[in-house]
Amino acid sequence: MITKIDHIGIAVRSLAAARVFYENVLGLQCEKIEEVASQKVRAAFFKIGDIHLELLEPTASDSPIARFIESKGEGFHHIAYKSNDIDSQLDQATEAGCKLIHEEPIIGAGDKLVAFLHPKSSHGILTEFCAEPKRTA
Amino acid sequence: MITKIDHIGIAVRSLAAARVFYENVLGLQCEKIEEVASQKVRAAFFKIGDIHLELLEPTASDSPIARFIESKGEGFHHIAYKSNDIDSQLDQATEAGCKLIHEEPIIGAGDKLVAFLHPKSSHGILTEFCAEPKRTA
Repeated sequence: MITKIDHIGIAVRSLAAARVFYENVLGLQCEKIEEVASQKVRAAFFKIGDIHLELLEPTASDSPIARFIESKGEGFHHIAYKSNDIDSQLDQATEAGCKLIHEEPIIGAGDKLVAFLHPKSSHGILTEFCAEPKRTA
Repeated sequence: MITKIDHIGIAVRSLAAARVFYENVLGLQCEKIEEVASQKVRAAFFKIGDIHLELLEPTASDSPIARFIESKGEGFHHIAYKSNDIDSQLDQATEAGCKLIHEEPIIGAGDKLVAFLHPKSSHGILTEFCAEPKRTA
């Protein structure tokens, strides 16, 4: 079951430039900056209520975020919904005819389990499911 | 001051088609459907946590949402932040050099006070401020 929006991913050319807007105009505080080498991005996290805005700056010209900005410009990139059971969530999506980018969850930032649906299955919005990692005794 | 994300606006060709995704895949419930004649849109509201997803379907070919979909396809349209003082919020945006679509708040859906910043001032994201209407004695 989806319990909340976890975060909204936003593609920006430069974290330094975009932070001015999020800090000075919206008055939000940057909680942390994290580099995700596998995705070739640097991410800045801003908490608002119980969700995060995740600004994503490419760290290489062949980063998926660089290609996104090249084709569409800066802007919304994805929305991540927190699920209390990511496997069932993916089964439910498959049964409803969705195309999945990940058939099985992968390990994302903060060791969360994450999986993406294809935006063609979700009316133009790249949709992520995420869940806390399973604890083993 | 921004207190929370109020809603996320999502442009869709057909509410009927998009609802299948939001209801069957995400498991969200449609709270209400409202036609906003001035904007030539029909909006469906889905609550998730303390924010809403607002699906926007054009009701005419010259609707701003129709033009958006024509140029960019279905997807994210805008993000609305709730402010406890929309006038100060707009002053702060102006001082920070933002271009405003509305210099003064206008009355939006649910009689809220709303004002939009230009997406060029907000790194590609059409940004709305909204606030509860002022009560007069």
